[in-house]
Amino acid sequence: MYPPPLSEEQGLWLASSVQDWQINHGFLLKRVRSQSAHSVLCCPIGVTLFPTPFPRAQFDEALNLQSIYNELYCAMTEDEHWEIHQDVKRVGGHTQNISCGIFRLDYMLQGDGTSKLAIDPADGSISIPQLKQVEFNTFSCAGASHAQKTVDMHRHFTRTGAYNSLTNGNSPVGLAALPENNNIQSLAACLAEAHALYGQAKSKVAAETAVLLLVQPQNFNIADERPVEYALWNQASPVLAYRVEWDDDLLETTSLSKTKELLFHPSWLQSQVPIEISVVYLRAGYEADEYDHVGKRARVRLETSRAIKCPSLLAQILTFRKVQKALTEPGSVERFLSPNKAAKIRKTFVPMYPLDESQAGLRARNWATDSDVAGNYVLKPSHEGGGHNVYGADIPDFLASVARSAWCAYILMERIHSPAVYNVLMSPQGIGSGPVVSELGVIGTCIWKKTTEGSEILSNTVAGWSYITKHTDVDEMSVLKGYGCFDTPLLY
Amino acid sequence: MYPPPLSEEQGLWLASSVQDWQINHGFLLKRVRSQSAHSVLCCPIGVTLFPTPFPRAQFDEALNLQSIYNELYCAMTEDEHWEIHQDVKRVGGHTQNISCGIFRLDYMLQGDGTSKLAIDPADGSISIPQLKQVEFNTFSCAGASHAQKTVDMHRHFTRTGAYNSLTNGNSPVGLAALPENNNIQSLAACLAEAHALYGQAKSKVAAETAVLLLVQPQNFNIADERPVEYALWNQASPVLAYRVEWDDDLLETTSLSKTKELLFHPSWLQSQVPIEISVVYLRAGYEADEYDHVGKRARVRLETSRAIKCPSLLAQILTFRKVQKALTEPGSVERFLSPNKAAKIRKTFVPMYPLDESQAGLRARNWATDSDVAGNYVLKPSHEGGGHNVYGADIPDFLASVARSAWCAYILMERIHSPAVYNVLMSPQGIGSGPVVSELGVIGTCIWKKTTEGSEILSNTVAGWSYITKHTDVDEMSVLKGYGCFDTPLLY
Repeated sequence: MYPPPLSEEQGLWLASSVQDWQINHGFLLKRVRSQSAHSVLCCPIGVTLFPTPFPRAQFDEALNLQSIYNELYCAMTEDEHWEIHQDVKRVGGHTQNISCGIFRLDYMLQGDGTSKLAIDPADGSISIPQLKQVEFNTFSCAGASHAQKTVDMHRHFTRTGAYNSLTNGNSPVGLAALPENNNIQSLAACLAEAHALYGQAKSKVAAETAVLLLVQPQNFNIADERPVEYALWNQASPVLAYRVEWDDDLLETTSLSKTKELLFHPSWLQSQVPIEISVVYLRAGYEADEYDHVGKRARVRLETSRAIKCPSLLAQILTFRKVQKALTEPGSVERFLSPNKAAKIRKTFVPMYPLDESQAGLRARNWATDSDVAGNYVLKPSHEGGGHNVYGADIPDFLASVARSAWCAYILMERIHSPAVYNVLMSPQGIGSGPVVSELGVIGTCIWKKTTEGSEILSNTVAGWSYITKHTDVDEMSVLKGYGCFDTPLLY
Repeated sequence: MYPPPLSEEQGLWLASSVQDWQINHGFLLKRVRSQSAHSVLCCPIGVTLFPTPFPRAQFDEALNLQSIYNELYCAMTEDEHWEIHQDVKRVGGHTQNISCGIFRLDYMLQGDGTSKLAIDPADGSISIPQLKQVEFNTFSCAGASHAQKTVDMHRHFTRTGAYNSLTNGNSPVGLAALPENNNIQSLAACLAEAHALYGQAKSKVAAETAVLLLVQPQNFNIADERPVEYALWNQASPVLAYRVEWDDDLLETTSLSKTKELLFHPSWLQSQVPIEISVVYLRAGYEADEYDHVGKRARVRLETSRAIKCPSLLAQILTFRKVQKALTEPGSVERFLSPNKAAKIRKTFVPMYPLDESQAGLRARNWATDSDVAGNYVLKPSHEGGGHNVYGADIPDFLASVARSAWCAYILMERIHSPAVYNVLMSPQGIGSGPVVSELGVIGTCIWKKTTEGSEILSNTVAGWSYITKHTDVDEMSVLKGYGCFDTPLLY
């Protein structure tokens, strides 16, 4: 049986050993409300006590699909049909035609819903699960650093015999079943490559170039963001990297040169000359309320500067559900990819419907407002990248609370039903075992250049992966919100 | 001026950047009262914001002295004059004649008291400081892992230009001025070497051997202890390492075989056969209240077993102040070391006096009870390794509160007056700048064998160092108690 049932003593031992490993390896969340000038509290981030089974074939398939998805999104970003490209052309063109993207494509397994996922393939009740896309994140993707720490942790407990001993030698957890993960270096390498492509400082005033990481104020996910910053300094050829907050901090510490270079000159980096920013890595600016007066000024400064954005405004727009839905329409993917590649991508789509007054929209409205069938769907705002979904049985009431004229701002997506497996989840919210489902995130990094024909891909890499697991009776997957837990796929 | 005065903004930036580095690198204390089954809080341990100047000549001298001190203590441990050796002989002899030690010798600089320690040697007011021994710790020495993280941290802020920028390019902090530190690997290597010397399992029931780390229950210093445990697993030739608490945990998870091997069989390590313990690394059992009924049984089991103890009971006794005082007497060091080596050692002693009714004791009593001169001394319990000292002006009142007949249980030691330097100290207790003094700890590891002639040293290594700094108006140096902060010597 997997995972093995634990006696109370065993459970306490494993839980506290895991917490100690997390503390020792910076696998933590900062408790920002506790922050004072001289101290701050932190606690272990949510993790699974055991790795969760996932079929190796689908894991490999997901990794193999990523370069195709990268290609698709690079091409879409620079597609001339976007109005914003016309607008920019009218005002003189882009200052920087190179862009950088760190994407994460999330998948869940679609089973046939009838059976648990058992490890023994000889069991005739096993269904062959299908990889289905939950969403494609193009902006401020989190979790990469934590994902790497997770697999290091599960490897440690595998290697020290903890899992084996708890199963009396019958554990299926072996090192060969836990995939490698080098996310932190992959992300740093992508930013370093973009930094190198930017080249020497171009402004007359700066001597050095650096990567700028933009983060939210009062940020608690520093243990996911900072490792990339430290890794940049630790590259064989060190890349300078600095961090500022998406608020007055950014406006006060940067300025544009006459020739549009983004100059950086914080008071705590008292040098004679400013530093020129080669790459801006955005880990902020993804929520509507960040675009107050200060936020808008900040974004305009960045977008009009010569710095390479990771990602640009256009790549951010591509994370909207509306785009995800548009891609499900016949012919849309095929505009950008060969038929063969397009077919592989389409296989991972689940049906998505508008909620406007088109024929498809009206039909979808029937489903969404019908308590008997609403459970098969997820409602997602069209013009967002995630975080405000409404699930299943909650949809009818939610739509009843929203003006009908506003329904067209939403998309209805078929829910993905994953076969349940079992695990023990531990987080600041509590610890408990039971049926769980997981989301596999594949991380892709790419750098591309806008050309007269569209786009030229300069770098297209499958950077790594993340794996998040939640109890089946919880709708949301977010670890930072306290629902999901970081996990490692136990490949079989 | 060093360190540079910081504006409020600069101070906040540096403090929070340091805290983030600490969180990311497990440079933390666990807040044990917050521990639940599913979560726990932790916070950054006390550190200095800048490295503190220390003369390179004295740093090198301290490191060079360590192998001599190691030799002295190995020889003293097995000296036949100890009654306990006679006792053990009477009951059949030692089960294990190999012992292991992880020692830490703490020094402070003795200045002439007139001037601050300035970095520019051209300044004629600089006194030549002398290395003076505060104490020699032979048991459960803490801080090694944290010390290594401290220098990594200060190196990071040096490398990223933080210190340089804050001094407008005039910082004396360069990487070459910050010494290397590999404490964690050094400690693991020592235990791994002892483990290898132990050899194959000797009991008929065990198949594997492992190192056992003994820790206090409700332990909050896991970020100093666990790195050594993880490092053992990470050796090129992995060494199994397990952790148990010094309480019923130890008694229930271990037993002695018929031939005195120490067998380990916790419920969370369900193997068919027990594991045989090669080396016991004690990070507990150093306080009197740990020797209740359970504690005594625990210690007897360990000492009578075939496992190599790090350290043995005898080595623990050598940490007592009484021993430190005895070594100051003429001829004592010379019993164990060549005249040349003995002279180097003696140079680092400060005068120590008994408080018994001998002539020297009565004279010392006069000083200790005289408010005018008591400030020049520290009162230390003879039969302890530290932590219950009474300082300077507090001594007369303390002695007045203790029965005169009990005064002979104390030692009076001349206080070491270090030249003050300046730094900013940040800990859970607060943040503040001002005059500070530091303690340099040199870590030595050794393995020795008891022979008919005395002892044979099998391994004698200078493993590394630690550096703790406190405000001058504070008496105690302990970081765990919230007084001192981890630091890096800025060598000049």
